[in-house]
Amino acid sequence: MAKTKPSIPKGTRDFGPEQMVRRNYIFDTIRRVFSKYGYSPIETPAMENLSTLLGKYGDEGDKLLFKILNSGDFIDKVEPSLLKPGNSNAASLAICEKGLRYDLTVPFARFVVQYQNEITFPFKRYQIQPVWRADRPQKGRYREFYQCDVDVIGSNSLLNEAELVLIINEVFEKLNVRTLLKVNNRKILSGIAKVIGHADKLVDITVAIDKIEKIGIDAVNAELRERGIDEAAIQKLQPIIQLQGSNAQKLSTLRNVLQGSPIGQKGIDEMEELFRYIEAWGSLSTQVELDLSLARGLNYYTGAIFEVKAQDAEIGSICGGGRYDDLTGIFGLPNVSGVGVSFGADRIYDVMLQLNLFPESLTSTTQVMFANFGTTEVAYCMPAARKLRDAGISVEIYPDAAKLKKQFEYANKRNIRFMVIAGETEIQNRQLSVKNMATGNQVTIPFDGIEEHIKFNL
Amino acid sequence: MAKTKPSIPKGTRDFGPEQMVRRNYIFDTIRRVFSKYGYSPIETPAMENLSTLLGKYGDEGDKLLFKILNSGDFIDKVEPSLLKPGNSNAASLAICEKGLRYDLTVPFARFVVQYQNEITFPFKRYQIQPVWRADRPQKGRYREFYQCDVDVIGSNSLLNEAELVLIINEVFEKLNVRTLLKVNNRKILSGIAKVIGHADKLVDITVAIDKIEKIGIDAVNAELRERGIDEAAIQKLQPIIQLQGSNAQKLSTLRNVLQGSPIGQKGIDEMEELFRYIEAWGSLSTQVELDLSLARGLNYYTGAIFEVKAQDAEIGSICGGGRYDDLTGIFGLPNVSGVGVSFGADRIYDVMLQLNLFPESLTSTTQVMFANFGTTEVAYCMPAARKLRDAGISVEIYPDAAKLKKQFEYANKRNIRFMVIAGETEIQNRQLSVKNMATGNQVTIPFDGIEEHIKFNL
Repeated sequence: MAKTKPSIPKGTRDFGPEQMVRRNYIFDTIRRVFSKYGYSPIETPAMENLSTLLGKYGDEGDKLLFKILNSGDFIDKVEPSLLKPGNSNAASLAICEKGLRYDLTVPFARFVVQYQNEITFPFKRYQIQPVWRADRPQKGRYREFYQCDVDVIGSNSLLNEAELVLIINEVFEKLNVRTLLKVNNRKILSGIAKVIGHADKLVDITVAIDKIEKIGIDAVNAELRERGIDEAAIQKLQPIIQLQGSNAQKLSTLRNVLQGSPIGQKGIDEMEELFRYIEAWGSLSTQVELDLSLARGLNYYTGAIFEVKAQDAEIGSICGGGRYDDLTGIFGLPNVSGVGVSFGADRIYDVMLQLNLFPESLTSTTQVMFANFGTTEVAYCMPAARKLRDAGISVEIYPDAAKLKKQFEYANKRNIRFMVIAGETEIQNRQLSVKNMATGNQVTIPFDGIEEHIKFNL
Repeated sequence: MAKTKPSIPKGTRDFGPEQMVRRNYIFDTIRRVFSKYGYSPIETPAMENLSTLLGKYGDEGDKLLFKILNSGDFIDKVEPSLLKPGNSNAASLAICEKGLRYDLTVPFARFVVQYQNEITFPFKRYQIQPVWRADRPQKGRYREFYQCDVDVIGSNSLLNEAELVLIINEVFEKLNVRTLLKVNNRKILSGIAKVIGHADKLVDITVAIDKIEKIGIDAVNAELRERGIDEAAIQKLQPIIQLQGSNAQKLSTLRNVLQGSPIGQKGIDEMEELFRYIEAWGSLSTQVELDLSLARGLNYYTGAIFEVKAQDAEIGSICGGGRYDDLTGIFGLPNVSGVGVSFGADRIYDVMLQLNLFPESLTSTTQVMFANFGTTEVAYCMPAARKLRDAGISVEIYPDAAKLKKQFEYANKRNIRFMVIAGETEIQNRQLSVKNMATGNQVTIPFDGIEEHIKFNL
């Protein structure tokens, strides 16, 4: 067999110890916050039936599904004429029944419908699992990546939106990432489109609002004209495009402009309730800003829309989500409203690496290493290693009685903080020598003092 | 679109909150112990190139690989004559380049070879990830299941085996599962086969030893005769089949019987060194027993062999592993010895459930729920909820101002311990009422006393 250098499929990644420790730091932080807010974990299989996945992500999404070949004599069960050139799509459906999940939202909807009689609603769940997309790999875009989704389903209350804002605030506060949380509301956007008589121009309006700072009011108005919006509508839009001030001031202006739109008023009510809850909570480290140009997921969000950006790094959104009113309808359970957000672990990782935000203590998992001079010396050290491990300290005993230089090199490469050395003299005097690898200091201590010594100096 | 009741592929599972909390308890315990012994986490992609996976698990294993269909116009890139009935195997290799990982060992070997210049050896890694097998699903056998592997590679020292024994001991001690750890050594078995002149009858010998307690010495000898082992060999085998006493006594008997076999003597040396380290560590809660009938993985283990059984449950092995001398040779890096064990999380879960070993505190993730009487009342409660969450306590605020009965039902179903109620009276007096849902006791306390009250009563 040819021994080619092994590799992994393009768009996928291996994670070594250093990356894992950092990734786990992000996941654990997120998980702890989710849990503190009463969200419970679920997991779904990597493989779903294709009937569950197909048609949920548009034609483009269907093409990006990884399909799993049926086992056994799959060809024998297929009409041969299907397997002809130019017919890959139909053929794939004949020889594949399963696919890898594309996101966590559809599996969650499937889960809720499947177990609807066992679930206590409102159902607050989080899910941290990889998803797979047969996308063209590029910088920052992978074919396997983790999503961290938190959703509550079966409740219309705006308190859910508020709690998600608090979760976002706390996750990034704990991770030490300064963030800006943009919020918008689909109902306000619908109201605006209604009031200016262009219900179909939602996206054009948000694009125009988005550009005001960059190109100025005249250029924005010119662009709106180009996009086929009439002069009267553009006039009505002026206060909205130039909306300024605090969130409360913006909402007050909007309430005025949207007087003729019940849905717009409803959107403003929702935002005011949301802000009221957030205010009652107290000060946040995340800046929350009403931003009408936020047009994320306009084809499925029905209420609040969220998007989080890092303040100190040029990168896209690191978290986002919103309210959707009919997630489970596709699986036959209509009228169940939900709201949720998804944290982009990969981008958060990149931001934290770039801004040097990972705690220094994450660089190594082992704190103390015992040098190895042979079986007798190791046996002598073992009760000390046990005492440290029992105290929760991570300990290695170098496995081989190699040259001490080699053992030191290993400890250095692995960033191990303390090295414990016990040779003939130490054993005779029932002592241990402990070297602080950072300072180079070495002290000799009584055998039974090891736990105290390490704990004091860690 | 037909709205059929959604389901998941056979042999796969969804995990709801209760199962997840228990599974995470197992994974977290295992992870913490691995880490305390200086093992670092890695993760590899779910998909590997088929060239990495094929030929590593025997013909039967190759058939059990889940293959991933190439994206796009996969048919157009294939010789049409390949896609004919009866040719599924060859065809699958023409239309699939990737497969789902079958275990964590081959990806680990691939990882070590791929990053050999960046890795510090001895490399101690653990890996907790799902694997996929297109096996026929049956009770306790799934098509997607987690493996928890811990291996050290690049060191021949028996101390590694000893540390794995300590890891096994500590994991099951922490999980409160009483276990029996059977150890064997491939070199001792080879020595036995050599000494009796039947180097090819390793398995027959271990089967015979395994049956002694059930069928008695005469029946075992009769069976050995049937299996073609001659009378002189059977005579030599008698002390081995009837091996008894402590581990030290067994090894002493074996050293005597295996005088003519250098490899057998080497195996005994190894076991003695292993037991010496374990003894130096101190008392273990896991019973460690030399068992020559342990024949796990005889086609790849070259030294120690491990298998763990639960003492109080009738179930197969819940953990196992051993020493392999050439894991990475298949990828072009020869002569690298490793040793490792794999914990069977699913079986451990089943044992713990059956024996009722999960801590009671795992039943719910939320500890305190605030009742919801409307926006004003919720706003009043929020600083109290914040104080509790800041103290690390998991808190929900019921999202809707539903009837109190409904809110109580929700809290009961979710096993929430305390319910905090704040209506008009409480707000007027700046108080909170706290109901202990287990005892039914309800007390009214000052608003600022909430953290102290909950902490005291938790």
